[in-house]
Amino acid sequence: MVEKIAKFMLENDKVAVWLNVELIEVKKSYAKIAMVVREDMLNAAGICQGGAIFSLADFAFALASNSYGKVALATSANINFANPAFKGEKLIAEAKELNRTRRTGLYQIEVRKEENNQLVALFTGQVFIKDKEILP
Amino acid sequence: MVEKIAKFMLENDKVAVWLNVELIEVKKSYAKIAMVVREDMLNAAGICQGGAIFSLADFAFALASNSYGKVALATSANINFANPAFKGEKLIAEAKELNRTRRTGLYQIEVRKEENNQLVALFTGQVFIKDKEILP
Amino acid sequence: MVEKIAKFMLENDKVAVWLNVELIEVKKSYAKIAMVVREDMLNAAGICQGGAIFSLADFAFALASNSYGKVALATSANINFANPAFKGEKLIAEAKELNRTRRTGLYQIEVRKEENNQLVALFTGQVFIKDKEILP
Amino acid sequence: MVEKIAKFMLENDKVAVWLNVELIEVKKSYAKIAMVVREDMLNAAGICQGGAIFSLADFAFALASNSYGKVALATSANINFANPAFKGEKLIAEAKELNRTRRTGLYQIEVRKEENNQLVALFTGQVFIKDKEILP
Repeated sequence: MVEKIAKFMLENDKVAVWLNVELIEVKKSYAKIAMVVREDMLNAAGICQGGAIFSLADFAFALASNSYGKVALATSANINFANPAFKGEKLIAEAKELNRTRRTGLYQIEVRKEENNQLVALFTGQVFIKDKEILP
Repeated sequence: MVEKIAKFMLENDKVAVWLNVELIEVKKSYAKIAMVVREDMLNAAGICQGGAIFSLADFAFALASNSYGKVALATSANINFANPAFKGEKLIAEAKELNRTRRTGLYQIEVRKEENNQLVALFTGQVFIKDKEILP
Repeated sequence: MVEKIAKFMLENDKVAVWLNVELIEVKKSYAKIAMVVREDMLNAAGICQGGAIFSLADFAFALASNSYGKVALATSANINFANPAFKGEKLIAEAKELNRTRRTGLYQIEVRKEENNQLVALFTGQVFIKDKEILP
Repeated sequence: MVEKIAKFMLENDKVAVWLNVELIEVKKSYAKIAMVVREDMLNAAGICQGGAIFSLADFAFALASNSYGKVALATSANINFANPAFKGEKLIAEAKELNRTRRTGLYQIEVRKEENNQLVALFTGQVFIKDKEILP
């Protein structure tokens, strides 16, 4: 069921498609995904754009928070950028659930470099959980 | 000078290119930009993906914080999502400077719908300012 | 009604009592309050402790978000510290509502020095709104 | 040295004194502290005020980020409130360093109930590191 949701989300999240996200592991309340930094993800300073890193973390967040089957909408997110990521580097985003009530959920996502485990960004996000099912 | 920096950043920020960002107004410590939500910016729930909205706000933030000519690197950002944005809607992101010291800067960006001024997201970001010049 | 709620909250919020918060103006979705930085609010660096500034902003946030009469619980808050505050300075916290739905609310609070309007901190907070009434 | 700094900070941080913070463990880049929720830390809803919880986390953050001996000033902090804390409960705040460069540091603090390890709040904070020594 969780894998079916993840597959549906990956196919229908156009930004995740653009990022070319790879699903490594998804289970209830958890997701681990990856992407490789491409030329067209760089900013004017030649490093991976913050929006691309945010989008990767945000998709791991979406997978973990929607894994129960109900639509979970992000209400807030906070991101701290620790180290820059460069073209060609593979980034791993791992989302863990820290709290979940009937209506709210709190998740933390770490984005690290696959090569040396260096922290690229720390992302914390909250969702509001609706009654609607995620699968059509 | 500010316009030259903005033009350089827009041409070299590949995510901004992908978002098809339009520069409305840039001046020292300020930026106002726009984008139209496209089909390929939607998530699995059919609304504009959080990462695309973040990326728009983040680029306005980058324009405002780099407008002095020195490289300003984002260290943290916080985003609150107020209302969903739909395909075809034009979003305006306006970045204002709230504080700037020699090494740090604080900016706030509001993302609103052009049509009715409804708030889509509120973004607050901090930068660390380097000695390096942004223009090559 | 809003003033009755504010008075009740001020009397029963023990941290606000400790801060010696002064109500300047409260109305639906809005609050403006003040406090004077005391010796016993300083940290080891001799400036006003971040927790005291947060608590002031947080109480303005609580007043504005509870002004409708329903209990509003903070789910997340983000604070950026712009300039230090010193002993004897009077700080003004002004809370504005940016968005409100049936279950959630988004507020922004600016903490400024009364003397020169300098920004001390920018606070953004979200609430989850319960059905319970705030007044007993 | 780290313990000397911690002792100095605890004695001179008046808010920490008010919270009656207990040092459990401090070492370079790490701090674990505790406090008991008192009657005078409650808000109008009868639960521990967000500002008191923030202040506890903030002090653990200060201990960890100042443990190297240089003054570290908080530039931003984000807090997510997961579960309410009640009068008489003992709260443990544990601060860990996620990243540190010459000028910046990123720390995460979890506040949990001692009794059952339930998460009360998640705090993420960034500092700007000055050249000044923390000890007089």
